[in-house]
Amino acid sequence: MTTPDLTPLAGHRVRHPGPDDHLPVLAVLDTWWGGLGGDEGSRQRALLLPKLMFQHFTGSSFLVTADDRIVAFLIGFLSPSRPAESYIHFVGVDPAERGKGLGAALYERFFAYSRAHGRSTVRAITSPVNKGSHAFHTRLGFVTEAGPKEVGGLPVQPDYDGPGLDRLSFRKDL
Amino acid sequence: MTTPDLTPLAGHRVRHPGPDDHLPVLAVLDTWWGGLGGDEGSRQRALLLPKLMFQHFTGSSFLVTADDRIVAFLIGFLSPSRPAESYIHFVGVDPAERGKGLGAALYERFFAYSRAHGRSTVRAITSPVNKGSHAFHTRLGFVTEAGPKEVGGLPVQPDYDGPGLDRLSFRKDL
Repeated sequence: MTTPDLTPLAGHRVRHPGPDDHLPVLAVLDTWWGGLGGDEGSRQRALLLPKLMFQHFTGSSFLVTADDRIVAFLIGFLSPSRPAESYIHFVGVDPAERGKGLGAALYERFFAYSRAHGRSTVRAITSPVNKGSHAFHTRLGFVTEAGPKEVGGLPVQPDYDGPGLDRLSFRKDL
Repeated sequence: MTTPDLTPLAGHRVRHPGPDDHLPVLAVLDTWWGGLGGDEGSRQRALLLPKLMFQHFTGSSFLVTADDRIVAFLIGFLSPSRPAESYIHFVGVDPAERGKGLGAALYERFFAYSRAHGRSTVRAITSPVNKGSHAFHTRLGFVTEAGPKEVGGLPVQPDYDGPGLDRLSFRKDL
């Protein structure tokens, strides 16, 4: 479908996020990440997820809520400059809600939306230390792109997002 | 024009940025900002300007070079979710090249590109401490949106981009 599928998931409401969801999402991230990195970790997550994502990429993004509690979200967009690509920027699922396929279902909905808009490739990245993210993307059919460095058996793109900001780069053909 | 104007500016070449420009742009930012904030400042600038901007928003963005030296850039996009808006995310001009109207000219080109795509509003934000940015946007016809807080006589949006990340919010009607 050309608009994202917003039917409920695991009994939870699915909708597009908006600007008012920005600070609540940052707050649950601190909880879900267990306060990883303290104030500095929190600041880094905020910088990775600026409000602009909740203003300008809402139509291609998903927020899952139980009552008013945020349980999962996916921020993604159709690439304006690469007409055959779409990009998943940030995904989070409440640890208490994991194992129900919520994250995978949001990815599948984003894939369907991407296909409906003529996209043949989806890209995403993650930190090399995030083994769980690598396993998740591999299960969903993403390939980890070859890189000049290896960390824990995985191909790494050094300084991908800036000096010292190494990343794994995932690609899936739709 | 429906594609951005890439004619030279002040004798300098103007082109779209690409992924290979990402690390060089981050490097010149450290120089232009005088190393402000040390390693942490550098990391924050990198997080504000992730590689995705140089992959997926290139067609609406500008890079100005003298020989191979980067002298200015503008990263902006047409909002996918708000069809009447466009957004300028990050702009930098080499301090040695200031006073030649390079920054203003890039903004004007982005305005023209936005108008050609039916956009009637352009938005941008900056840090409340950046008086120079406020003066620059005001000269270009931006209004600083009313906010619940005031810092140095300017209306501030508290926690705009996350806890402790206050911003000035600029809006210009095209």
